[in-house]
Amino acid sequence: MLPRVLRRLGAAAASEVGPGDDCAVLRVSGDAVVTSDTMIEGPDFRLAWHDGFELGWKLAATNLSDVAAMAATPTALTVSLAVPHDTPVVLLERIAEGLDAACRALAPGCGIVGGDLGRAPVVTAAVTAIGELAGARPVLRSGARPGDVLAYAGELGLAGLGLSLLFAEAAEADGTAHDRTLGELWARHPEALAAQLAPTPPIPLGPAAGRAGASAMMDVSDSLAIDAHRLARASGVRLRLDRARLEAAFGRQHGAEVPLEAMLTGGEDHGLLATFPEGIAPPAGFAVIGSVEGSAATGAAEARVRLDEEPLEARGWDPYRVWPPGSGS
Amino acid sequence: MLPRVLRRLGAAAASEVGPGDDCAVLRVSGDAVVTSDTMIEGPDFRLAWHDGFELGWKLAATNLSDVAAMAATPTALTVSLAVPHDTPVVLLERIAEGLDAACRALAPGCGIVGGDLGRAPVVTAAVTAIGELAGARPVLRSGARPGDVLAYAGELGLAGLGLSLLFAEAAEADGTAHDRTLGELWARHPEALAAQLAPTPPIPLGPAAGRAGASAMMDVSDSLAIDAHRLARASGVRLRLDRARLEAAFGRQHGAEVPLEAMLTGGEDHGLLATFPEGIAPPAGFAVIGSVEGSAATGAAEARVRLDEEPLEARGWDPYRVWPPGSGS
Repeated sequence: MLPRVLRRLGAAAASEVGPGDDCAVLRVSGDAVVTSDTMIEGPDFRLAWHDGFELGWKLAATNLSDVAAMAATPTALTVSLAVPHDTPVVLLERIAEGLDAACRALAPGCGIVGGDLGRAPVVTAAVTAIGELAGARPVLRSGARPGDVLAYAGELGLAGLGLSLLFAEAAEADGTAHDRTLGELWARHPEALAAQLAPTPPIPLGPAAGRAGASAMMDVSDSLAIDAHRLARASGVRLRLDRARLEAAFGRQHGAEVPLEAMLTGGEDHGLLATFPEGIAPPAGFAVIGSVEGSAATGAAEARVRLDEEPLEARGWDPYRVWPPGSGS
Repeated sequence: MLPRVLRRLGAAAASEVGPGDDCAVLRVSGDAVVTSDTMIEGPDFRLAWHDGFELGWKLAATNLSDVAAMAATPTALTVSLAVPHDTPVVLLERIAEGLDAACRALAPGCGIVGGDLGRAPVVTAAVTAIGELAGARPVLRSGARPGDVLAYAGELGLAGLGLSLLFAEAAEADGTAHDRTLGELWARHPEALAAQLAPTPPIPLGPAAGRAGASAMMDVSDSLAIDAHRLARASGVRLRLDRARLEAAFGRQHGAEVPLEAMLTGGEDHGLLATFPEGIAPPAGFAVIGSVEGSAATGAAEARVRLDEEPLEARGWDPYRVWPPGSGS
């Protein structure tokens, strides 16, 4: 089974020894960065929504964005898959194809260099991504300083919108109608479903932000509101998000209207939230969405992040609320 | 919950940025090696046998041995744990303590630099180990040449013996008696149970073998017989295992008698199988167990590995056979 899956995978440019020995061997330029993430059927994804290709794509994309958020360039992934014994091999092949396609599209040169295949009661995928800094310094969450501008690159709110549409569909579908209603969802909201099921984080903008002089950076995974609080806390600063700038930059994405609430609390965006010292223009692809207002002592959590003048709670997506606001029961 | 677990972990010497940002940052000297492995409750371990400490230890040890088998020095692990919602936090703390203790004991300087914690129907642990070659070349499975000596370092057969004892105990215990009978097993066969539940692979001997000039090397995970076939196939050679040498070197380990059958088919040994060109003495800790006899064309699988003059099948441990041979029903 493993050879049929491995055949789907292109080689990593940095790989000196690929899958098949005890380890892969990788050339690394400068320091390495490493991150791991697990996705488990049930809490993290549903096979009724994701086909294997999208699942593989999302596995790669979410890990690649963590590498980019350090200002590093992704060079290799390892993938451990464990699946129930009756899993069709075609699902594994499609996962491999999705992993490979995401690497080619989002981080050319990066490839899968190793991993394993085992048995589990539900589909379980653990990915480790490795990147290289090539002599550059890593950009951490903790470097934001008062006076910096706050900027964001990537889709914002669409993925959360996609997930709420899927939940609403699942609540309404009677099971037999699922294929049809999912097809209708894709036809009506392709941009939101794609953002949720096969996100396209702006990987090259991570190293570009580092070269430009970003003072802090992170991947927005839980929600802009939650992750802005994390960046503010790590840096010991207060952040101000500018509602007008957010709506101007992200109110319409790929033709879809995105409400402010989705931008702030949607989650799974996997874009880059970064700060840049005054006078440094963020690279093209970043939109300025606010500023670093001042220092903040530990414990002053409630005032760390504001939207215009109002304190912004660290809220993420709530699966029990139907989207968009007001449309649910 | 995560902070309570992270507190159990010492820092990795090569870590410039540890857990808490989007990625860890690692200094790497020379090329990096990387390997991933997943252990899942049920197929890979039983919590009735492993306490959390042993499970964490084994997770680290088995991945560290894959790094050593490339002649590299392990520098960092990432660990993704997913557990049922009712898992006691003390189990996670014990897993973290076992991971940390194994790194300190087996590969000083190596530490856990990242990972994540999630939900799954059964305890699921995915580990990635990273090592550095520090300017040395990696030793692959494919480098054995006719005339080389074949050597092994580590315990051999004890882990398989331990697993068969545990299976036999599980088949006989009536559930309520389990704690008592497991305690008795530990008292009677401490070396076999320790080898199975908390193995101690000879990690520093991997880089030492590389420096000495090993031509091929691999970690023995499935069984000496199976992995000797793999090394022979990767190198395109025939191997001869010497029964008298195996029995002299491994017939008694830590005071326990180990039958030849266990050495050959036990599995989960995680020792190092290596070849050295004629005239090169394997480093202390390796025992010569045979030789590389000649080239072998692809397809001549049945004659690739011999025990003395007899062809040796690529057999591993069989959970349906009770150990030692002849003692079962």
